[in-house]
Amino acid sequence: MPSTRIVIVGSGLSGGLLACMLARRGYDVTMYERRPDPRRAGFIGGRSINLALSCRGVTALQRVGLAETVLSDSIPMPGRLMHDASGALTYQAYSKDADDVIHSVSRGKLNMTLMDAAEASGVKIVFGHRCVDADLDAPAATLRDESSGSVVRAECDVLFGADGAFSAVRWQMQKTDRFDFSQYYLPHGYKELTIPPAEACGVDPARHGGFAMAPNALHIWPRGGSMMIALPNADRSFTCTLFWPFEGEMGFDHVTEHEEVLPFFEEHFGDAVTLIPDLVNDYMTNPIGSLATIRCWPWHAGGRVLILGDASHAIVPFYGQGINSGFEDCRVLDELLDEYAGDFEATFPRFSRERKPNADAIADLALDNFIVMRDSVANPAFLTRKRVEHALHALDAQRFTPLYNLVSFSNTPYAEAREIGERVIRVAEEIVQRIGVDEMRTMSDEALASSVRAFVESVT
Amino acid sequence: MPSTRIVIVGSGLSGGLLACMLARRGYDVTMYERRPDPRRAGFIGGRSINLALSCRGVTALQRVGLAETVLSDSIPMPGRLMHDASGALTYQAYSKDADDVIHSVSRGKLNMTLMDAAEASGVKIVFGHRCVDADLDAPAATLRDESSGSVVRAECDVLFGADGAFSAVRWQMQKTDRFDFSQYYLPHGYKELTIPPAEACGVDPARHGGFAMAPNALHIWPRGGSMMIALPNADRSFTCTLFWPFEGEMGFDHVTEHEEVLPFFEEHFGDAVTLIPDLVNDYMTNPIGSLATIRCWPWHAGGRVLILGDASHAIVPFYGQGINSGFEDCRVLDELLDEYAGDFEATFPRFSRERKPNADAIADLALDNFIVMRDSVANPAFLTRKRVEHALHALDAQRFTPLYNLVSFSNTPYAEAREIGERVIRVAEEIVQRIGVDEMRTMSDEALASSVRAFVESVT
Repeated sequence: MPSTRIVIVGSGLSGGLLACMLARRGYDVTMYERRPDPRRAGFIGGRSINLALSCRGVTALQRVGLAETVLSDSIPMPGRLMHDASGALTYQAYSKDADDVIHSVSRGKLNMTLMDAAEASGVKIVFGHRCVDADLDAPAATLRDESSGSVVRAECDVLFGADGAFSAVRWQMQKTDRFDFSQYYLPHGYKELTIPPAEACGVDPARHGGFAMAPNALHIWPRGGSMMIALPNADRSFTCTLFWPFEGEMGFDHVTEHEEVLPFFEEHFGDAVTLIPDLVNDYMTNPIGSLATIRCWPWHAGGRVLILGDASHAIVPFYGQGINSGFEDCRVLDELLDEYAGDFEATFPRFSRERKPNADAIADLALDNFIVMRDSVANPAFLTRKRVEHALHALDAQRFTPLYNLVSFSNTPYAEAREIGERVIRVAEEIVQRIGVDEMRTMSDEALASSVRAFVESVT
Repeated sequence: MPSTRIVIVGSGLSGGLLACMLARRGYDVTMYERRPDPRRAGFIGGRSINLALSCRGVTALQRVGLAETVLSDSIPMPGRLMHDASGALTYQAYSKDADDVIHSVSRGKLNMTLMDAAEASGVKIVFGHRCVDADLDAPAATLRDESSGSVVRAECDVLFGADGAFSAVRWQMQKTDRFDFSQYYLPHGYKELTIPPAEACGVDPARHGGFAMAPNALHIWPRGGSMMIALPNADRSFTCTLFWPFEGEMGFDHVTEHEEVLPFFEEHFGDAVTLIPDLVNDYMTNPIGSLATIRCWPWHAGGRVLILGDASHAIVPFYGQGINSGFEDCRVLDELLDEYAGDFEATFPRFSRERKPNADAIADLALDNFIVMRDSVANPAFLTRKRVEHALHALDAQRFTPLYNLVSFSNTPYAEAREIGERVIRVAEEIVQRIGVDEMRTMSDEALASSVRAFVESVT
C-alpha cells in the first residue's frame, strides 16, 4: 500500500513541528514554503525576533524529542520586572514555584531546528513556493515558484494549511458557503528595538553576566494605554518591543521626527534610553507591525483539509501563547491520530470541535492580558491580588491554581483554564475586599498567607 | 471643468438608488453589473422575491421622486398574523397608529424601477460585467465581460462598491492592513415556497379579495427554533419563506425525502399545507439560502472609494431592514454631499463614522428579532408587554416610542432608536411585573391603558 501523501503549506513553527510528527507516523510529507531556506538565505522573520515558550510548547516538542535541544539555548524567565517612569523596578514572580518559568527562545533558530528535524525524519521541504490556490475537494495545493513563476499542482491525500494568519488555504475555505470568519485589529502596533550586550551600552558586564539588565525576567515598561517590553536573547542582547497605539499622545503618529524620539523616550522610558544606542535610527527605520485576532469556523473539510496554528486562530502576543497554542494543536492532533489509528476522517472533526473553544478562550485571554501588562501590573491592588492568588495556590495547589499558571505552566485546555482561573481570581478579590487592599499591601508574605488560610478555612 | 467620473460596482437596489442620486448631482455615473439586464433577460434574484419597505426606504426614495411609483404597487402590512400549530390566528398590530405600515414590494420590480430612473437621469449601466479587481488608489475597477471574457479597466474619480454581501470591492479592501472584517452565519437557512392566488388553492376568492389568506399582514408560523413567514405579492400570491436550522429535528436535514415533506408540514404548518399546491416539489427542488451578518471597517479609502449597503453591512432579514438600511445609506450620503458641497474627501470619513454604529445596531437588532419572530410572538408575556408598549406610546408619543416603531416608522438613527426603544421595553417590563402578566392579559385595552397611565403618573 502506498504511503499517505501529506502536503503542508507553510514551514513556519507549527508547520515544522507538524511535519516532524506526521513523518514519524510514516506518511509521505512534503512541505511548501514561500520564503527561501532560512538556513541558506538567513532568517527572514515575519514576526518577532524571540518568543516565550511555555509548558504547552515544551510538551509538544517533547513528543518529537526536541525539547531539550530547544531549551538548551533558551533563557528562563521566572517573572516580570516592571520599570516605572523614574526607572524604579518591581519584580513579580509568575508562580509560587521557582521552577515555573517561561523560556525566551529565538524564533529563527527554533524554526531552523524544526526544519532540520523534519528533513531528518524524511520530510521534503520545497522553498520559494507560494500557495496561490487550494482545491479543497481533491485535495491539492497550487504553488507558484517565486523565482521562475512556474506553477505546480501538488495533489495529496491530506492537505494542511499551516500558513499563518494570512493563510492561502483558509482564503479558499473562506469562499465556501457558511464559513464564519473574523479578523479584528488592535488600535496598537508594534516596533522592535535592540538593547545590545552590556559592554556595548556602557553597563558593567559583571553586573548581569554580560547583559545590560537582569536577564532572567520579562521586562515591562507599563504606561497605561501603551507599553514597552524586553525579552533576553542567548547572545546577551535584549529585543525590546514597543506596543503603542497607532494614534494619540502615546502613539506612533505622535513621534515621527528624528528630534522627537529622544525627548519622548527620556520622558516615558527614561531608564532604557542609554541601553539602546541606536534608538533614534532604529525607531525611525524599523517597521510598525499590526496585531490581529483571527477566528474562523470550520477548520477542516472532511478528512482532506485542516488549517491549524495562526491559520485558524491568530491571537495577539500578550499571553505569549501564539506559538504555544500552535504547538498544542500539533500535539493534540498527533494524540487523536493515535486514538483513531490514523483515520483523518474521524480525527479532523473531533480535533476542530475540541480545539475551537480553547482557541477562542486563549484569544480572549490574550486580549485581556494586554490590559494587565500595560496597566494592571503597575497597580497596587492588582499586585496585592496576585500575592493572594499565590498564597491560595500555596495553600491548595489543586483547588487554587491561578490563571497565569494554568495557561503557562500546565496543559489544561485553555477554556477549562480560564474557568478555573477566573474562579480563583474571584476568591482572591473577595479576600482582598474583606481584609482591605491597604491593610494587605503592607503585610509580610507570612502574614498574608495566614490571613488567606484563615479566610479559606472560614468559608469551607 | 469636466464632470466628476463616478463608477458604481453593482446595480442592485442600493446601487440603483445611489446612481439616481449621484446623476442628479451632475456627475458622470457608470454602473457595472455582473448579471444581464433584468428588463430583457428576466429578473434573476440573488435574494428573496419580495421585501418589506418601511419608513427609511420610503424617505430615501422620496429624495429621487420614486416613492409614489414604488408604493403604488405595494401591499401595506400594518401588523403580524401569527398561525399556531392548530391553525388558530392571533393578530398583532405593529403600531397604535393604523397609518404605520410596512410595505410588501417586489424586489425585482423595485430594482427595474431604479434602473429605469437611473438611466433616465443619465446613468450608463453596463451589464454582464463582473468586477474582478479594484484599485483603491487610482481609483479604478477592473471588470470582466462575462460573455466575451475580455477585461476592461474603469478609471474614475470616485469608486463605489454597492456590490452586495460578497463585494469584490470590499475583497480588495480586506487585503489592506488593519481592515477589520467579520462574517458570521446563522445555523439557519431559508427556502422559498409559493402560495398562489385563492382560486388556485381552493379558497373562495371573495374571502380575501383573491388572496388565499388575509393580504394585509405579515404572516408568521412561529415554531420556537424555526419558523415560516409569508408576505403578500401584488399578483395575489404569497411568497413563503422557511427559516429552519440546517440541522436538527426542525431542520432541513430532517426532511430530505419526498415522502417526508407532507407529514412534516401537516404536523407543524398544518393550515398552510392546502395553500401550497406545489409544496412537495417546491420543497424538494428550491435551494436553501444561507444567512450571514457581515461587518467591516473602514468603509472608505480617502475620498476615492466607499462601500455601502450589504457590501459594508449585510444583516439577517428578520427586521426587514436590509434594504431600508441600504437606502438610508444613500439618503445620508446625499445629505452629506449637500452639506460638504460635493467634497468626497470630507464626506466619506464623516459618512462612515456616522453610519457604522447605526449599521452595527441594526445588525444586532435583526439578530434579536429572529428570536422575537420565531419564539416570542407566540408568548403571552411578550404579547402583553407589546400591548403595554403601545399604551405607553399612546400616552406620550415623544417619550415612549417603542423600538419597532422607531426602527420601522421613523428615520431615527438605528443606534439611537435602540437606546430609546430598550428604555421603553424596560419601563413596559416593569409595569407588567408590578401588575402581573396574568392580571394584564385579561384586561381590556381601556383598563390596560389606565393601569399604564396610573403607573407612569406614580413615578413621574
